[in-house]
Amino acid sequence: MTALITGGAGFLGRRLAKRLLERSEFERIVLLDIAPATDVGPANRVTSVVGDLTDRSLLARLIDADTTSVFHLAAVVSGMAEADFDLGMKVNLDGTRALLEACRGAGHCPRVVFSSSVAVYSNSTAGRMSELTAVTPQTSYGIQKAAAELLMNDYSRKGFVDARILRLPTITVRPGRPNAAASSFASGIVREPLNGETAVCPVDRDARMWVLSPATAIDCFMVAHDLPAGRLGPNRILNLPGLSVSVGEMAAALERVAGAQAVQRIRWERDPRIAAMVATWPGALDDSRAIALGFPRDRNFDEIIQAYIASEGITV
Amino acid sequence: MTALITGGAGFLGRRLAKRLLERSEFERIVLLDIAPATDVGPANRVTSVVGDLTDRSLLARLIDADTTSVFHLAAVVSGMAEADFDLGMKVNLDGTRALLEACRGAGHCPRVVFSSSVAVYSNSTAGRMSELTAVTPQTSYGIQKAAAELLMNDYSRKGFVDARILRLPTITVRPGRPNAAASSFASGIVREPLNGETAVCPVDRDARMWVLSPATAIDCFMVAHDLPAGRLGPNRILNLPGLSVSVGEMAAALERVAGAQAVQRIRWERDPRIAAMVATWPGALDDSRAIALGFPRDRNFDEIIQAYIASEGITV
Repeated sequence: MTALITGGAGFLGRRLAKRLLERSEFERIVLLDIAPATDVGPANRVTSVVGDLTDRSLLARLIDADTTSVFHLAAVVSGMAEADFDLGMKVNLDGTRALLEACRGAGHCPRVVFSSSVAVYSNSTAGRMSELTAVTPQTSYGIQKAAAELLMNDYSRKGFVDARILRLPTITVRPGRPNAAASSFASGIVREPLNGETAVCPVDRDARMWVLSPATAIDCFMVAHDLPAGRLGPNRILNLPGLSVSVGEMAAALERVAGAQAVQRIRWERDPRIAAMVATWPGALDDSRAIALGFPRDRNFDEIIQAYIASEGITV
Repeated sequence: MTALITGGAGFLGRRLAKRLLERSEFERIVLLDIAPATDVGPANRVTSVVGDLTDRSLLARLIDADTTSVFHLAAVVSGMAEADFDLGMKVNLDGTRALLEACRGAGHCPRVVFSSSVAVYSNSTAGRMSELTAVTPQTSYGIQKAAAELLMNDYSRKGFVDARILRLPTITVRPGRPNAAASSFASGIVREPLNGETAVCPVDRDARMWVLSPATAIDCFMVAHDLPAGRLGPNRILNLPGLSVSVGEMAAALERVAGAQAVQRIRWERDPRIAAMVATWPGALDDSRAIALGFPRDRNFDEIIQAYIASEGITV
């Protein structure tokens, strides 16, 4: 059994690869990304491939009869897809389609776990939004993810792939540096203060986010992968269980966990462009479908911060 | 002012062109289709272009600074898109995207009236479905239309086009011959008996359809075109007003209008493949948004049949 992870050199991709390595049935793990993935695991099981998601001949070579599982994590992030419309369309829509075509070409209906996003929703919809609520994305990133979801469902219905579509909340706390995602600050306002650095928060304290920790996200990917297709029915979309927290509550949790000096390193400087994008995302979703299917959830934001501190070996 | 109609040689496209000719502001009407459109109007105002919707250089030539209005009617119909997945994707998704790109390239945000479909819904969704209900199409045609709707909305949000997305009910009564649409019988069971021919009905009498007459559809296209963009808001999708009728009620209306001998020409022969596709479409929708915006509706199926008889000059 081979697993392919697109975006495999990224933070979640590398974590996922390490989790897959714990299971002996995954004899080989291929990490496709635009950058090489180093130090993930032994060379006899882990292969890093540098290449483009829209390269159909590369995908056809990578996805073969042994490829039982594809984890599709690669994407142009929200801020970049908004700034460069054509790049977002190319990677997030055409790239996903190229991947689906390569899976179809393999001929054995590979299992595909697709990382979609809460950004398919728009905050303008009233009431508690579930998988039965219309998606009306107000960002190009959300549109591209929503279109990719449709394709995932139809390729599954046609028997070309066996897709599991996960609408990921905002993942926090991400290690490393800020990125071009409009939600980048949701990690930065915890991570930078814990590193003794200043973080700029571009949204107001009452902005409400729907968040998920990296560790629970990886757990969710595994549950999604292992779920029998019959339990999904014709609509393979799932809202992953999230935690609804305001940015002010995130800061308060940081203060409880790491003290007043940490939270004072957050500089509140509203950026209208980012605030506008974040405002289009829902601060909470109906995740009862995923919960009923056995997906795990985070308990509170304090624990998310504590888990980050533990995994990064930070001394508070 | 130039109007471009894709699918312009088709039955609705030709009717729409004739309606546009009544308005002097449309100096030129271009009919793009895979077949020539003849006898639509005077050569100094009507141009028939034979070409492919996915031909980007052709589209770039056709959509210029004068093209204020684009009516996008061309599509691979439901039955064909299901039988030939790649052709449906190419025309219904890539073709729509090519058209949007050509409009974007023109640089003046042309108005685009897009013919989407009730097939974006699936009958599995409970309750009365509106534009706020998730679309979960169970046909490739529906998936392609739903993805095209997303693109229409985002190209509008970005200011590339000014789209009006109309979810058309099943259009009946269409003149001419049966086509590869799974809904073809909805015209055939009226049209063929009125022509003294036998029609095969592939679905049961209690199958419920959401239908619209051709004349009212053309009225709706004009209302959609003329609507100020500000009245649409960020979600440009509209369920066109329909009539909810069972196939048995359609037959009963035919009997009232044209007599018992007409309805006896319907042969009830269930086709599981067609019945299954039709069963995924809703038999009724919430059309209150379109009604509030001033879109017209048909009153009953008897009048739809009477209008067909009158327009075709049939003697009953």
